[in-house]
This record gives sequence, structure tokens and C-alpha cells, in this order.
Amino acid sequence: MSSPIDLYPTRRFKEPRLVYRTDDPAVWGGPGDGPLTATQLDRHELDGFTAVPQLLEPTELADAQAELDRVMQDPALDGDERVIRERTTDEVRSVFDVHKLSPFFAALVRDERIAGVARQILGSDVYIHQSRINYKPGFGGAPFEWHSDFETWHAEDGMPRMRAVSLSLALTENYHFNGSLMIMPGSHQTFVSCVGETPEDNHKASLVKQEIGTPDHGSLRLLADKHGIHQFTGKAGSAIWFDCNCMHGSNGNISPFPRSNLFIVFNSVENALTDPFAAEKHRPEYLGSRDWQVLK
Amino acid sequence: MSSPIDLYPTRRFKEPRLVYRTDDPAVWGGPGDGPLTATQLDRHELDGFTAVPQLLEPTELADAQAELDRVMQDPALDGDERVIRERTTDEVRSVFDVHKLSPFFAALVRDERIAGVARQILGSDVYIHQSRINYKPGFGGAPFEWHSDFETWHAEDGMPRMRAVSLSLALTENYHFNGSLMIMPGSHQTFVSCVGETPEDNHKASLVKQEIGTPDHGSLRLLADKHGIHQFTGKAGSAIWFDCNCMHGSNGNISPFPRSNLFIVFNSVENALTDPFAAEKHRPEYLGSRDWQVLK
Repeated sequence: MSSPIDLYPTRRFKEPRLVYRTDDPAVWGGPGDGPLTATQLDRHELDGFTAVPQLLEPTELADAQAELDRVMQDPALDGDERVIRERTTDEVRSVFDVHKLSPFFAALVRDERIAGVARQILGSDVYIHQSRINYKPGFGGAPFEWHSDFETWHAEDGMPRMRAVSLSLALTENYHFNGSLMIMPGSHQTFVSCVGETPEDNHKASLVKQEIGTPDHGSLRLLADKHGIHQFTGKAGSAIWFDCNCMHGSNGNISPFPRSNLFIVFNSVENALTDPFAAEKHRPEYLGSRDWQVLK
Repeated sequence: MSSPIDLYPTRRFKEPRLVYRTDDPAVWGGPGDGPLTATQLDRHELDGFTAVPQLLEPTELADAQAELDRVMQDPALDGDERVIRERTTDEVRSVFDVHKLSPFFAALVRDERIAGVARQILGSDVYIHQSRINYKPGFGGAPFEWHSDFETWHAEDGMPRMRAVSLSLALTENYHFNGSLMIMPGSHQTFVSCVGETPEDNHKASLVKQEIGTPDHGSLRLLADKHGIHQFTGKAGSAIWFDCNCMHGSNGNISPFPRSNLFIVFNSVENALTDPFAAEKHRPEYLGSRDWQVLK
């Protein structure tokens, strides 16, 4: 397995660089290919995201919340590397591979409202690159600093092109003040080449607090001045589709209200992983799946 | 100087207590006493705050911003205890006593739109208990945890009654995502008696990160469920008046956009300080002034 030309070099230069995305659209399919309208697809191409005010019906939502609780408390997962805990409090922060761990979530991700939209945006069959539930507790949940997911997936997993899309499905209400997702609209058109070499087993540290693969302040300031910042709020059951290269992050949460969501990354089967572009070896299967069987 | 009856006991019991405010209104004056209307005063009594979309005219705002920069960079203030720096980065976080350090701010606080409103809300002549400029830098400004200012002023400064009001005047734009003020509307009617004794010179630690005098999570959850959380946004030049006992806080700021404001606390001359209610000695003059000459 050899790597193709690197359109998005990162962690290789002494100074940060901005690489403008020219060859990879955000939207690969058309209005006839799935649930989204032409208008929605056009906005997705421009902004890099599509918000869905209500993706789940109330009964589905209640089932999903119950399943979240069950998975987060599952004693069978004690000590499992797919369970990530908060550095200071030891509380569960993320559980990976939920589409494998839970028959409920396995069925949910295959729903036409989910997999169908992913196929439409990516214009091809898809598979799941990563899935997880995130839990940000009240009273001090930590921030996620600004980053592009694609930068990590490219550098550490070997994802060659920008042809992946993520779904963040809210399982609790997202307020402005409990650490909800922020995206710089349109930032997906710019790849920020980051400084610093990838240390061995970087993912063990970066899942708790990312340090390598974080954009520099100058680039972030430039993108924020150009694009502004959009913060998402919405009821439990709402969702956001966003392009793999959106510059995004979230604040900490001092409110009493926790925040949890289901996060699923779909990759095009035509964008299967190669060797990592800036790491000695690829990350574990639960972070960047190398099993690109078509999702059925 | 002896202390009167303690209506708001705190830092004295092993368990937190909720004390309902019965004797001190939030609004002591009437619509004939100043700029605010009867409707505004009624809302202030209910919510504990009044938002002012534009308190300063554009030219006044520009002057205030220039003066902020001058004060924050004033070499004469190097090493001054009234300058508080961020624990990790050494950046200036607050400068106290700005109404004494700066003739510009000394004049501004005496403006009828400011001192006049303070007199109206408090129904008496007023003096300045504390003034400061706050600066929350971009890229990681720290949060201020939930607290009632009055709890500290009562415990550590000897402020006997709830008859003080604060003005937060925005000198940069307040977005939802750059650490803007959050208040639980109506929370000023409940005093949360906090647990823990006041250590000597507590203010030296608490200005950087408050630990004593912070409400317990159970009380905060109860107040947040009852009152919800209101987060303030507004252009530079906007302002918020809020009662001394409002439960308030602010998130950290990972955005590139810094946030600064002028913060002035007015106390009624009829509410002059006594001995502290829960500390061996009172805090320094710049934190809780004991010079209650009428502001003219």
C-alpha cells in the first residue's frame, strides 16, 4: 500500500501554511441522490455544514438516550481502550465504536436519514471511519480546541482526500453556554498545515487534550476574521452534518447542564485509507477504521 | 464598629443553605428618581438585571477603549497589587481602582447614565465599592465559576445588606462564544450560604481562581433548573446592570476574540460596610472601599 500525491501536507514544515482546497468539493452528489434538497446541498458546499432541527422523533430520541446511558455505564467496557476518561475527574468523556458496541446504534446509523444523507453528500457508497458518543459533564467539562478533523485523519490515519462527512446528533439540549459546537462557516475551503512532528502513539494524549495537529493562532485569527464563528444550539434530537475539514471547536461547560452527542464519521469508499501522511503507523481501528466495507 | 444582625450567614455551617431574600428589594427608587422607566425597574426587580443595548456613543466608546489600552500597558502599574495576572500566561486579567487611576474613567462613572441609574436603583446617594477593568484574552481565557458577588462582599468586606448594584460595560463585542456574562434570572432572590471557612488573605488566591465562597453544585443545579441561564451578547458600548446577589459566571474563551469590560460596583451610602461577617479582617481598599463618601 503506497500513498498517493499529498495534496494536504502537514506536520512537515517549520512554519504553518494555508492550502486552498481546489480539487475536492464538499458535496459530491445531487438532489436526486438522497434526502437533501438542491438548496441544502448548495449551502453545504458554501458553509461546510447542514443543520437539521429534528433528526429523531421523540420516541427514537428517548431510546437513543437510554442506550447512551446503558453504554456509558456498561461494566463490560471497564478498562476498554475505546472508553476515554476526563484527565482530572476520571469521568467518561468519549466511547468509541458505538456502532459496533450497540445494536441500537448499529441500526440507527444505517437509517436513510443518516446513511442516506452521507451517501448523497459524498456521492458514493460509504463506510464508517469512526463513531463515538461524547459526554461533556456540567460543572467544568473541558473545551475542545479549534481543529480540523481531516488534518488528523490525513496525517495519522492516511485519509487521502477530503471526501468524508461527520454527523453530530444531539442527545441532550445544546445551549450556547454548555459547550456546544462552533464552526467557522466556509473554513472547510482552507487546509491549515500544522507545525510539529507526530509523536509515537500521539492519539493516547490527543484524545484527552490535543496538542500536535492544532492550528497556530495566526491562522485561526485569519480564518475567524474572514469567516466568523457560528455556534449551534438545538434541542435533543437535532443534528449537524459537517465537512471533514471544517475548523471547529467547543468551549468548556461551567453550567450544570451536561452535553452529550453521537458522532459518526462517514468516508467515501472511493477515499479508502492509505499509509498515514505524517505518522509512522496508523492509529487503532476504533479511531480510523481500515475496514471499508460498504455500509448496508 | 460592630456588625449588625447577620441576615445572610455564610461560611459558618457544615452544609449549604438557601436563604430567601425578604427584607431587601432589588430596586429601592422609583421612575421619578432617574433615567430608568417604571417597566425597566419592574423587570429589574424580577430578573435582577437590566440590559442597555447602547450606553456609550461611538466616540465615547473609542475614547474608553483607548483609555483601557493605556491603563493596561501603563508601566507605572508594574508590580501594583491592583493588577491581577492570569495564572498560566501572566497576561493582565484585571486592573482594579480604574476610577481612581484614570481621570477618564473617574468622569465616566459620574455620568448621569451611570451614577444616575445607580442612585435610582438603590434609592439613595451612592459610592463606589469597587471598580475594575476585566480582560479575557482569546485562545484560552479562563472561566469565572458561578458565584454571587454579595456573598464575598458580605463575608469578606462586611457589606451588611443587599443594596448594591454592578455595571458591566462592554468594551469589546460580547458574543455567545467569547466568555460573555451569564446570569440565572431571578436568582438574586436566593442567597446561597456557602461552606468552608475563609482563609487568611483569601483574596490573593480568589482573584485568580475562586474556591472559598463558591456555591455547591446542588444549590447551583436547583437554581439553574428553577431560573434557567441567560447569556448576554452585545456590541461594544452595551452594558448590563445587575444586582449584587445575582448568581452569575462566564465560560472560558477559546475563540480568537478577546473580551474586555469595565466593571463598577455602586453601594448605597446607607449600606456602609461593617466588620466582615466571615473573615478575620477586611480586604484591601481597592477590593472593597471603606471610603463611603458620596459620589459627586
